[in-house]
Amino acid sequence: MAKDFVKRSENYSEWYNELVTRADLAENSAVRGCMVIKPYGYAIWEKMHDALDKMFKDTGHVNAYFPLFIPKSFMCREAEHVEGFAKECAVVTHYRLKNDPDGNGVVVDPEAKLEEELIVRPTSETIIWNTYRNWIKSYRDLPILCNQWANVVRWEMRTRMFLRTAEFLWQEGHTAHATKEEAVEEAKRMLEVYADFAENWMAMPVIKGVKSPNERFAGALDTYCIEAMMQDGKALQAGTSHFLGQNFAKAFDVKFLSNENKLEYVWATSWGVSTRLMGALIMTHSDDNGLVLPPKLAPTQVVIIPIYKTADQLPAISEKALEIKQKLETLGISVKYDDRDSFKPGWKFNEYEFKGVPVRIAIGPRDLEQGAAEVARRDTLEKTSCQLEGIEKRVADLLNDIQKNLFAKAAAYRTENTYKADTWDEFKEILDTKGGFILAHWDGTTETEERIKEETKATIRCIPFDAVEEEGKCIYSGKPSHRRVIFARAY
Amino acid sequence: MAKDFVKRSENYSEWYNELVTRADLAENSAVRGCMVIKPYGYAIWEKMHDALDKMFKDTGHVNAYFPLFIPKSFMCREAEHVEGFAKECAVVTHYRLKNDPDGNGVVVDPEAKLEEELIVRPTSETIIWNTYRNWIKSYRDLPILCNQWANVVRWEMRTRMFLRTAEFLWQEGHTAHATKEEAVEEAKRMLEVYADFAENWMAMPVIKGVKSPNERFAGALDTYCIEAMMQDGKALQAGTSHFLGQNFAKAFDVKFLSNENKLEYVWATSWGVSTRLMGALIMTHSDDNGLVLPPKLAPTQVVIIPIYKTADQLPAISEKALEIKQKLETLGISVKYDDRDSFKPGWKFNEYEFKGVPVRIAIGPRDLEQGAAEVARRDTLEKTSCQLEGIEKRVADLLNDIQKNLFAKAAAYRTENTYKADTWDEFKEILDTKGGFILAHWDGTTETEERIKEETKATIRCIPFDAVEEEGKCIYSGKPSHRRVIFARAY
Repeated sequence: MAKDFVKRSENYSEWYNELVTRADLAENSAVRGCMVIKPYGYAIWEKMHDALDKMFKDTGHVNAYFPLFIPKSFMCREAEHVEGFAKECAVVTHYRLKNDPDGNGVVVDPEAKLEEELIVRPTSETIIWNTYRNWIKSYRDLPILCNQWANVVRWEMRTRMFLRTAEFLWQEGHTAHATKEEAVEEAKRMLEVYADFAENWMAMPVIKGVKSPNERFAGALDTYCIEAMMQDGKALQAGTSHFLGQNFAKAFDVKFLSNENKLEYVWATSWGVSTRLMGALIMTHSDDNGLVLPPKLAPTQVVIIPIYKTADQLPAISEKALEIKQKLETLGISVKYDDRDSFKPGWKFNEYEFKGVPVRIAIGPRDLEQGAAEVARRDTLEKTSCQLEGIEKRVADLLNDIQKNLFAKAAAYRTENTYKADTWDEFKEILDTKGGFILAHWDGTTETEERIKEETKATIRCIPFDAVEEEGKCIYSGKPSHRRVIFARAY
Repeated sequence: MAKDFVKRSENYSEWYNELVTRADLAENSAVRGCMVIKPYGYAIWEKMHDALDKMFKDTGHVNAYFPLFIPKSFMCREAEHVEGFAKECAVVTHYRLKNDPDGNGVVVDPEAKLEEELIVRPTSETIIWNTYRNWIKSYRDLPILCNQWANVVRWEMRTRMFLRTAEFLWQEGHTAHATKEEAVEEAKRMLEVYADFAENWMAMPVIKGVKSPNERFAGALDTYCIEAMMQDGKALQAGTSHFLGQNFAKAFDVKFLSNENKLEYVWATSWGVSTRLMGALIMTHSDDNGLVLPPKLAPTQVVIIPIYKTADQLPAISEKALEIKQKLETLGISVKYDDRDSFKPGWKFNEYEFKGVPVRIAIGPRDLEQGAAEVARRDTLEKTSCQLEGIEKRVADLLNDIQKNLFAKAAAYRTENTYKADTWDEFKEILDTKGGFILAHWDGTTETEERIKEETKATIRCIPFDAVEEEGKCIYSGKPSHRRVIFARAY
């Protein structure tokens, strides 16, 4: 058990912050709202990156890179987009510093003022669609299926590492299509890719659905999303995919000659996931002993620790440990053998437990005599003695089992914390006493949605794709409704 | 032969610019000095990234991510660093826009002025060493071997795609060590990694050496570099590795408790290569027919093109082509089978030739009858008929051969264009009539170096590691010198 580590039940928010720093995932930097992603945290993000990047390429996408800066005037081209994004952002106004005439370091050179200010990209629709105008002439140039891995900046007032930071890392897909149908299909396809990644890599169950108009991306006709439940019952939007219609094509005058020889505006989608997924991963699985990682995203999947009293016991243990390491690596499993003499086994046990290494193997002289080793799994903290003969196969199976178990556990938690509410009182009581997801009827208006948000801080997370058609009355207004939507308080 | 494509001998600079855009590598963007890296260019950069990243990890480094922004005051902490970097940079002064009271879009909100301006990182020594202060307490925390893949911004007045852009992509390694010896060793090790990459992946011969004090990185005690020769005889600095001494540790107060229990300042290195390597790659190998790529960095290594007159001929060709494709892919070779009916074979030949695909296989009905195919190599443009039986092995050999041939050709070019000059007149004449590298004696002073630069635009590229000790006289001042250094005009 990690010393002085706050429990989730005591203070969930503090537990999260402390976990992020103590597990060496990230830390706050000297720049307000910007974090440093530490090597261990970044190694997890790299695994996410690699898995997602392969999924994007397998679905026909290519990567490209667009400028960090966006001319201020571009942000104004799409009316809703500017409302949503241009307000809280980092603005570059000058391109030079000079020595302070008073001798106090450097100051901004007033003569080096930009004619037009540049915005540090909060998202890249505008600069990309301005570029696409030159790439697209005819239907033969379509579709364009580009993705970009990049940093973006949104000047958030209240920040939390991974969940909401001024600068974050993400990918943003931007596709261009000849027809509406094809664009909608693309937006839905990428949502499926995100759901697949969330469930099968992050072991995080998600609900797929569409946002209410009020919660749409600024400039989109439809925003599809995946929503996950954290261990405090709050919702976290883990990924979004937008059908943008012809809004950006119109704003940037991007037309193509169709195969019927007509000039038409191009149809668009955009979709993104960010380092926010790191926050989702942490809050879905971790416990009061620290980080818990699904094996598929763990930088180190297995750690082997030698247990010995005298130095002469080590060589025989090391020989066996390295033999196991090599066998596991042949199966594609990443293994660390920690034979550092400067730390005691107990310290190492705590360290790897806190950092969420899925499987720990400990080998001592007695184990060697018995041709066995102690195998501990991080998710349940169970320990078993395992014969060395064929241990690699059993560890591989165990990793699969942990991956499945984490998903099942999270899915069960979500089921337990999903409720139906049919009256306003019931709705408020569930929110205040239990939290979680609430399936409730809603009259479909933005007015009602906003009132509910004001009174309870709960928002409509999505209208699930698999919502059952069911007649009912809006919990707030009493007006008729045809299906339940998901309400929750959210990150 | 590509239509209307300018020859190197006519206008090298225009040849380069046109090649970059016409081969779909990059294009200028709406933001001054910033380029869009197009999918094909980015795919090459991804191959560079992956190869380098593996080399960094194989030498014990880990990746991390530090903030995009650097507080202005940080830049002033290291005296030389601020002179070198803080001047031409993008400065963020505000964090909000608001609707223009006059109704003209949005304007910077004067109330949202930052207390301290933020610099968009031109390089990250300062923010990283400010972070390392908290990571380093004792010798047990050392070494720290971090690398970052990131975008950086330097407000260059004259920009050229890949070679010099306001924003560019790069990696920057930042390491911290307990001793001077270890830091110097690290800086040299990473230069070897860069040289290995340049020669064995890019097929670009490089000279390893150390910069003269005048050409050092701002804040470094020594800058090691690799220098390559482009096809116009000019030099291109392809990578640098800096021994920073204790300068940044002192500037940011980073001390550690040594194993002798003394508080000491930490020793540092930093090293980087950037998308500039794309420019180097292009200018080393490409010719008047377009891009030439070394097979190890080619996104598509082999293209197969069917030759047919009537649609009924295609199925038999496709069957064989896909069989070859699969066999090549089994050997880890990336293959594209281009059976698009909308383009003629001649158009496709030109297209892939211009884009530098190393090997082209063409198969027509007559080839099928003879159990053969036409194999063309991009580097020499030679075509041969090759039996289909065992073709995959011969193509694999051919790719290796192309990789070696490109290196040999570039090395021969460099040898042919490297001269010795023993007098000032000889020096100037070589520069003006032949260009290339000039091995000449130099008196070791910055004054002489600067005069030579003023009068000829040639700079000291490096003092080669393998410079032979030889007594001589400085070509400019006539003062004694012990070894020749390399002069050249440079990108």
